[in-house]
Amino acid sequence: MNKGILYGVGVGPGDPELLTLKAVRILKEADIIAVPDKGAGEQTALTIVKDYIEGKERVNCAAPMTRDPVRLEESYQANADRLCALLDQGKNVAFITLGDPTVYSTYMYTHKKVLERGYTARLIPGVPSFCAVAARLNTSLCEGSDRLLVVPASYEHLEESLDVRANKVLMKAGKSIGELQEALRRRGELDRASLVENCGMENERVYQRFAGMEEKTGYFSVVLVKDGGQA
Amino acid sequence: MNKGILYGVGVGPGDPELLTLKAVRILKEADIIAVPDKGAGEQTALTIVKDYIEGKERVNCAAPMTRDPVRLEESYQANADRLCALLDQGKNVAFITLGDPTVYSTYMYTHKKVLERGYTARLIPGVPSFCAVAARLNTSLCEGSDRLLVVPASYEHLEESLDVRANKVLMKAGKSIGELQEALRRRGELDRASLVENCGMENERVYQRFAGMEEKTGYFSVVLVKDGGQA
Repeated sequence: MNKGILYGVGVGPGDPELLTLKAVRILKEADIIAVPDKGAGEQTALTIVKDYIEGKERVNCAAPMTRDPVRLEESYQANADRLCALLDQGKNVAFITLGDPTVYSTYMYTHKKVLERGYTARLIPGVPSFCAVAARLNTSLCEGSDRLLVVPASYEHLEESLDVRANKVLMKAGKSIGELQEALRRRGELDRASLVENCGMENERVYQRFAGMEEKTGYFSVVLVKDGGQA
Repeated sequence: MNKGILYGVGVGPGDPELLTLKAVRILKEADIIAVPDKGAGEQTALTIVKDYIEGKERVNCAAPMTRDPVRLEESYQANADRLCALLDQGKNVAFITLGDPTVYSTYMYTHKKVLERGYTARLIPGVPSFCAVAARLNTSLCEGSDRLLVVPASYEHLEESLDVRANKVLMKAGKSIGELQEALRRRGELDRASLVENCGMENERVYQRFAGMEEKTGYFSVVLVKDGGQA
């Protein structure tokens, strides 16, 4: 029997209409849908694709919210074990992941393990959250000779990142939002910053001016800071 | 009569299956399709959407391949004149643009002019070329605490861009490909670089190792350079 294929399917940032035609086809054709499970019942990716996977078998794959490398490695090996057993049965599996699978998705760790074991695994691109955020703000991410720097949630070396001459996207601002707001204020850059939380989802909030934001925001916040053009 | 709405529709990087459901809906609902015209008959965006716009009225909008600011300004004003006249007639216009409209699209200049004149203009996100390129290479753009720097074709300050500690996407490498290859060789980074030309199109070429590339490449080349982790 031919082995199945694993597809890492980017489902876009939240709005189900931002699924690509290819993602929809792969989801419809797949035998099994693999769903990242952060353990708190939060399955945003599943909500996005629900219209296309009715009646299909699902497997939950651990995506623990930890930085403990031992626990993460165990999770990804367990995911690979489980998925490879399905591929051995000739099943095609679509693993859904928010945004684009090549941009900070934890899916990639499982993808690499499955590839290393000699199976076929492919990536299906999706719209990354920062493109949807810029569209929502009705502005560009980068024009002409602008550079664009995308910085992950962890914000290690935040000041160093802010020093780079580029428009900046700060992903999953969530917990670090206060720190970021303070750093931008100190640098006089707060007026060039905007924020969108839960872009394209029911609980979306848009701040054209980050300076005007008082509340704490959730995990799915993206901050866009336009370069001021200083040397 | 209500005025029409202008939609800047990202049609993705080349593969028609990477259109989003929303892009397809907007194209089908639009009264008129505006097509960027680079003057050499090159209308890649039109090829991508051809199945969804049969029989619809089209307008060509100049997108001249020049850096002359006077000519560019004239072109964008002329586009805005033309589009606003259609919006005044209550027509909804879908302006198609490759990739995502917020990432280096010349459409944005026309978009801003139409907004400035008090019309409604919206952006419909698309899959940017660099996400499709990473998927084609079966690798991530960024993981964990990686940063991602996107650098435009012009390559002003190329060395400074390469100095930034980040994974790098070099867009539309085309004409500057030799210069870039030489700079990466000098820095000992050529082995971490890959290149995809015309990703998802008929004439696609993939170089997992940029070092192995001898030929000159076309305009739609994207180079991905992974960070080596040096301080």
